[in-house]
Amino acid sequence: MNMKNKNTDPSVLKSKDIRAALIRSGMESMTKHGYISSNLESVLKKEGIPKGSFYYYFKSKEDFGREVISCYASFFAYKLDKYLLNESVPSPVERLKLFYEDARQGMAKYHFERGCLIGELMQEESLLPDGYNAVLNEILTLWQDKVARCLEQAQQIKEIKQGIDCWELAYFFWIGWEGAVMRAKLVKDPQPLDIFIKLFFAGIDQ
Amino acid sequence: MNMKNKNTDPSVLKSKDIRAALIRSGMESMTKHGYISSNLESVLKKEGIPKGSFYYYFKSKEDFGREVISCYASFFAYKLDKYLLNESVPSPVERLKLFYEDARQGMAKYHFERGCLIGELMQEESLLPDGYNAVLNEILTLWQDKVARCLEQAQQIKEIKQGIDCWELAYFFWIGWEGAVMRAKLVKDPQPLDIFIKLFFAGIDQ
Repeated sequence: MNMKNKNTDPSVLKSKDIRAALIRSGMESMTKHGYISSNLESVLKKEGIPKGSFYYYFKSKEDFGREVISCYASFFAYKLDKYLLNESVPSPVERLKLFYEDARQGMAKYHFERGCLIGELMQEESLLPDGYNAVLNEILTLWQDKVARCLEQAQQIKEIKQGIDCWELAYFFWIGWEGAVMRAKLVKDPQPLDIFIKLFFAGIDQ
Repeated sequence: MNMKNKNTDPSVLKSKDIRAALIRSGMESMTKHGYISSNLESVLKKEGIPKGSFYYYFKSKEDFGREVISCYASFFAYKLDKYLLNESVPSPVERLKLFYEDARQGMAKYHFERGCLIGELMQEESLLPDGYNAVLNEILTLWQDKVARCLEQAQQIKEIKQGIDCWELAYFFWIGWEGAVMRAKLVKDPQPLDIFIKLFFAGIDQ
């Protein structure tokens, strides 16, 4: 009952909504422009929130950035699991291709103006607050683990070449994926994603 | 004689030196921090040049950036030719690997703090002056052409798999290369470059 009361208190709900809206808006800005050039004032203006009240929700831009990164990482991990653990698709290679198609559509939806938040911030590593770089690398490592497990399954059923270290192959995948997203954002076209996926799989075809 | 007189005029020499020093310093800053966050004042301070005199050498930061990009592109095209057209190394695959080793040493020399200028700026595409994006893509396309020709030679002597489109393969190479440089800069370690090169060649081994 207490929980119910707490969750339905209009002021709490409003506060949660505003916080979530700010994070969503921050995510939009940072996937376009990165962290450094993301302007807090624009984020607040877009959500119609007075500048002064930002600090009611977040201690600082650094704190806000961490929340945005954390939300993006969770959202993306969920998306990866949705595709890579989907047992209704028997082929692990096909699962990874379905993830690519979803991400391709996601970029097209925003006219290739938004990239991967982690890739955007990675490029700014020399300018980010202390500790951010480690967080970015941890997130990439987590995503790599998910892809590595999918590739191991593909290897077990002889869908891809034997004798390749799937951890290294997943690292290779994310290196190329971030490069492809960056290039697709530059040319405003899916071609880099398409070429990357085509040749990634051509290289490990059984 | 006229040319000689012109080149040895101390004021002309000094002016050329200052211009070159500013470009070199801009290149250092932009390979670390990108274009947007590269501070003209720091560049000038580093070279001991008064702020006001910058505009004697360049019309604007935008103009300066274009010069820096152009110099970097020439320097890098020269480096690629030096390795990829080196006929004293009979194997085209070996030539590409020698380019990688040179670039790896270059990054290590600066403690993995400097990336590829084109990759750095590419990530800022939404914030760059008009026309920059097209220039970046043209430079990458030029580098791709050089790698494509090297890979075609490798294919001709059956060093790598037949039946692959070398233009696409070179595109794939640069996607991954930029991703690997970016990751190496994040983790301050050559591992991403090493994994990228290892698996790139594993995928096209004859």
